[in-house]
Amino acid sequence: MRLDHIGIAVKTIAEARGFYEIGLGLGTEPGIEEVAGEQVRVLKLIVPPGTHIELLEPMSPESAIGKFIEKRGPGIHHLCFACDNIVAETARMIEAGYTPLWPEARLGAGGCLVNFFHPKQTHGVLTELSQPPN
Amino acid sequence: MRLDHIGIAVKTIAEARGFYEIGLGLGTEPGIEEVAGEQVRVLKLIVPPGTHIELLEPMSPESAIGKFIEKRGPGIHHLCFACDNIVAETARMIEAGYTPLWPEARLGAGGCLVNFFHPKQTHGVLTELSQPPN
Repeated sequence: MRLDHIGIAVKTIAEARGFYEIGLGLGTEPGIEEVAGEQVRVLKLIVPPGTHIELLEPMSPESAIGKFIEKRGPGIHHLCFACDNIVAETARMIEAGYTPLWPEARLGAGGCLVNFFHPKQTHGVLTELSQPPN
Repeated sequence: MRLDHIGIAVKTIAEARGFYEIGLGLGTEPGIEEVAGEQVRVLKLIVPPGTHIELLEPMSPESAIGKFIEKRGPGIHHLCFACDNIVAETARMIEAGYTPLWPEARLGAGGCLVNFFHPKQTHGVLTELSQPPN
């Protein structure tokens, strides 16, 4: 299990990216990805030693990120951990007493299989599990 | 600039550590550090690829972490980026228009020199800069 990215909810990527790029001096991956299904735009920042920050800009106020910003303001939204076998890891976590959002992982952005553990399960931290495509 | 750790405010380390150790299967560094100056207990989890999560338990309700939990509930509190020269990095960030909490870095836990950028400066993410001891 490794930290794939930290998801940060921002009002606009245009306003927020300067702190990471100019302030902290982080590099970015090229382009802004639109994930239509989640109504979110994503800018991926490269964070040594081998992880990422994803700036998440809502495409509509009704999106999950839009509602999060409405309720709590912009800020850190979730942590995502990557693994090689999400079916096995999720089964292991259910065995340990943690219930994922969905019974089975779903196809997410970039062809990853993903599932989530709600903050109520995790002492306040929305936690994503992700299995990258082969 | 590299991600040193993600600081997560928890009511008690005893209750929260299971999700990270058993659920996510992360290792821990030995022992719980008490940082008396900040009235906080810290458990450091080892997060591949080369970063950490710090679980932060308040030693009093009046501590920064105690107040954070009172106001927002447990959850992600800050991101910490490590650098080799905090004086130079802070000067560069001031030049770029970002104002740190203190004019000069202060000695923090583990002999690190640290400074902070308030969420108002950073679109909602309390950001720590840290220079580890030589």
